[in-house]
Amino acid sequence: MILAAALSAALTAAQAARTHVQQHEPAIVEELRSFVALPNVASDHEGIEKNAAALVAMFGKRGIGARLLRVEGAPPIVIAEWGKGDRVINFYAHYDGQPVDPAQWATPPWSPAIKDGRLYGRSASDDKAPIIAMLAAIDAMKSAHIQPAARIRFVFEGEEEAGSPHLETYLKQYANELRADAWMICDGPVHQSGKLQLYFGARGVTDVEVTTYGPSRPLHSGHYGNWAPNPIVALTHLIDSLRDTEAKILIPGFYDDVTPLTAAERAAIAEFPDVDSSLKHELALGRTEGEGRPLALQILAPALNLRGFDAGHVGAKASNAIPSTATASIDFRLVPAQTPEGVQHRVESFLASQGWFIVHETPDAPTLLAHPRVVKMTWGAGYPAARTPLDSPFSARVIAAITEGTGTAPLRAPSLGGSVPMYLFMNGGKTPAVGLPIVNYDNNQHAANENVRLDYVNRAVEIFASLFAGL
Amino acid sequence: MILAAALSAALTAAQAARTHVQQHEPAIVEELRSFVALPNVASDHEGIEKNAAALVAMFGKRGIGARLLRVEGAPPIVIAEWGKGDRVINFYAHYDGQPVDPAQWATPPWSPAIKDGRLYGRSASDDKAPIIAMLAAIDAMKSAHIQPAARIRFVFEGEEEAGSPHLETYLKQYANELRADAWMICDGPVHQSGKLQLYFGARGVTDVEVTTYGPSRPLHSGHYGNWAPNPIVALTHLIDSLRDTEAKILIPGFYDDVTPLTAAERAAIAEFPDVDSSLKHELALGRTEGEGRPLALQILAPALNLRGFDAGHVGAKASNAIPSTATASIDFRLVPAQTPEGVQHRVESFLASQGWFIVHETPDAPTLLAHPRVVKMTWGAGYPAARTPLDSPFSARVIAAITEGTGTAPLRAPSLGGSVPMYLFMNGGKTPAVGLPIVNYDNNQHAANENVRLDYVNRAVEIFASLFAGL
Repeated sequence: MILAAALSAALTAAQAARTHVQQHEPAIVEELRSFVALPNVASDHEGIEKNAAALVAMFGKRGIGARLLRVEGAPPIVIAEWGKGDRVINFYAHYDGQPVDPAQWATPPWSPAIKDGRLYGRSASDDKAPIIAMLAAIDAMKSAHIQPAARIRFVFEGEEEAGSPHLETYLKQYANELRADAWMICDGPVHQSGKLQLYFGARGVTDVEVTTYGPSRPLHSGHYGNWAPNPIVALTHLIDSLRDTEAKILIPGFYDDVTPLTAAERAAIAEFPDVDSSLKHELALGRTEGEGRPLALQILAPALNLRGFDAGHVGAKASNAIPSTATASIDFRLVPAQTPEGVQHRVESFLASQGWFIVHETPDAPTLLAHPRVVKMTWGAGYPAARTPLDSPFSARVIAAITEGTGTAPLRAPSLGGSVPMYLFMNGGKTPAVGLPIVNYDNNQHAANENVRLDYVNRAVEIFASLFAGL
Repeated sequence: MILAAALSAALTAAQAARTHVQQHEPAIVEELRSFVALPNVASDHEGIEKNAAALVAMFGKRGIGARLLRVEGAPPIVIAEWGKGDRVINFYAHYDGQPVDPAQWATPPWSPAIKDGRLYGRSASDDKAPIIAMLAAIDAMKSAHIQPAARIRFVFEGEEEAGSPHLETYLKQYANELRADAWMICDGPVHQSGKLQLYFGARGVTDVEVTTYGPSRPLHSGHYGNWAPNPIVALTHLIDSLRDTEAKILIPGFYDDVTPLTAAERAAIAEFPDVDSSLKHELALGRTEGEGRPLALQILAPALNLRGFDAGHVGAKASNAIPSTATASIDFRLVPAQTPEGVQHRVESFLASQGWFIVHETPDAPTLLAHPRVVKMTWGAGYPAARTPLDSPFSARVIAAITEGTGTAPLRAPSLGGSVPMYLFMNGGKTPAVGLPIVNYDNNQHAANENVRLDYVNRAVEIFASLFAGL
């Protein structure tokens, strides 16, 4: 049951937000610009601390006492509460960003630049824009004297892009401080059509760095080629044994753990606008993977993505040498019922069955001599998929508040294609969690020239006000 | 028929060289050190000119007037003549070196360092050591008042490592200046056993840079993986369609052009010491390519070598993105009767038959949209293989002079595994050419930390003296 009063409050708050944005847009943009200017790679201790301190100051300016939760060796989590009552809704986002390769950026990643209605910089969209929009929604409701409908708790993590290796510890160690009736996860991009979409789950993730070995020192390809094993060729064959060019994973039994989509989930996907043709054109794609199946379905399936391959040299630096090693970086996207441990086990078992001797540290010469095919696998932190039913009571409240506040029903994605650690928030499935992305899809998230459309930030202020007042 | 007088002269000259080295080794090493200190990548115009000028000065110091032959846009060829008579023997080497990646060097590539009896630096072995040894052999014979047996002409090229793109033009444009009765090609390493080997041919070479295409901008692997084509996977499958992990080239008909080895050639190979086991141990190889066939045979077969692969990022820079392109660098080693044009045609025809649309310039968006699989192929300069019969009269003279001067019969390799443009010198097969490598095989030629063993330089002085006096 959704209360009529709550719906009315959502609408009133959204209208107040619209007025606030009209009057204060330059200040909102300036607050975003200052925040994006702070370097925020999770491994950069000093930069991360500056970001956390900036968040505390930003809440303080609004009369909200934020504080830092700390776990040794991890970036702090910033938490802040606004409003009263027994019901607690946590709004999650992360303030760290992906590593950068500055040479590939048109403007430096932490020198925000505004061009054609977009603000460019690392984390402009992922996730600094949602954080700034939440703060602006607080301002809007405060100046209109609108109280939040529940206790709204902001929970901002500082190492999501590093795979959230300490989030579980935080949630256990600070169980009292973080316990909530539900979570809103404010990460990820809107649908490619520009329509608002909620996601009720997220794929899990695990990643691995794979290295194959050739001669212990680079060898002249003319004098030793055809005889000294070429590590690049070893690695291309290893990769091709894992995955075909239609994105199908070839490891026997890999899909056995996959939970099939429900009828309700299939119906929600059917409501999605067709964006595939326009995306193909925009991205200059002469084909897609997945034997023609639509993007909306493909991102609900397990994935094996090649992220990088590095060996020897190409271009002007190419030389006639067989390199000593070849390395590829792979990520796996997991769906409900798959786990990182399960995927790691299946991958390693399969490679072992193909004759690979698997090591997890750089092999010494005796190891390389003793085994014809040695591969080093270095697994990163990972986590499983998670999903809240589309028809849970909390799901229904979120859908209703946004529909009322914005005048439009949002799309409902059973899962986000990308990975956020929703499983941790859901406490074994007992606590619902819903994802609310607000940034443009063409934001170059995780790559060079990341950006956010400023009109999307404005819309987000209204959306957050609807939820703060209407949930 | 080999004259007894010539053999006696070879022995006398070798003995004079031995005495000279004993008395002047520090000066020889210092001349090598100064020469290696000059940066010499073929594309570095200024560096190349300094190398050429240094060579002219080094000959001048010995009373030999060297001069520069010039073709527009190419590094000069340095030529110098010593001795009299109608018979002319050209001694070829190159003074340019492979490009460097200084980060991989223990000491800077052009700051020569001496350690454990080796001199380290780019081109220390390939080919600056042979050049210095020839000059020292001249000194040795001059101080012992020994005249060369023929007119010895030194021909030093400045862009061999760039694929000798102007050598053919030089040989045509300066046909009178460069015409000879035979060529000695003083490039490449000795046999891995340390034994001196002559080579009577060389594999040809052609290289290609191969680029595949994904989305026009990097995409988040979670939101687009499984749907947006992964250019790394496209390229691994392309590579695997060309070559297996036993070095076999899978292009139909690829081996049709190959001339089989003669009985004499097979017999000469059978005399080679077995170095495979010790090489495997030294290089930490748990296997070799070629189904167990020995290195000496494998380097006489055509080869497809992967030299580099670059796409996205690995390691600390890895990010969850599908890259826009993937690029591999490949070289092909050619055997007699194969040509670069023939190989290029076979490779491109095969890829086209596999559904690839081949372009030679970076494709625009309409091209990428119109074709499901686009590959850019950028072919470098190349040249065919060449071979002088093991039993030609000149071959016999070279073998005899070295046997006499050094007291040991050299090994006879029908072809060097590496590529030198012997076909150009051979004038359609009419002029014999024999390769004489003098540097240690473990010289890191073409890679970081290139080096030459100084005891090999000393031996080379004797060898060159034997030939100058005995040919």
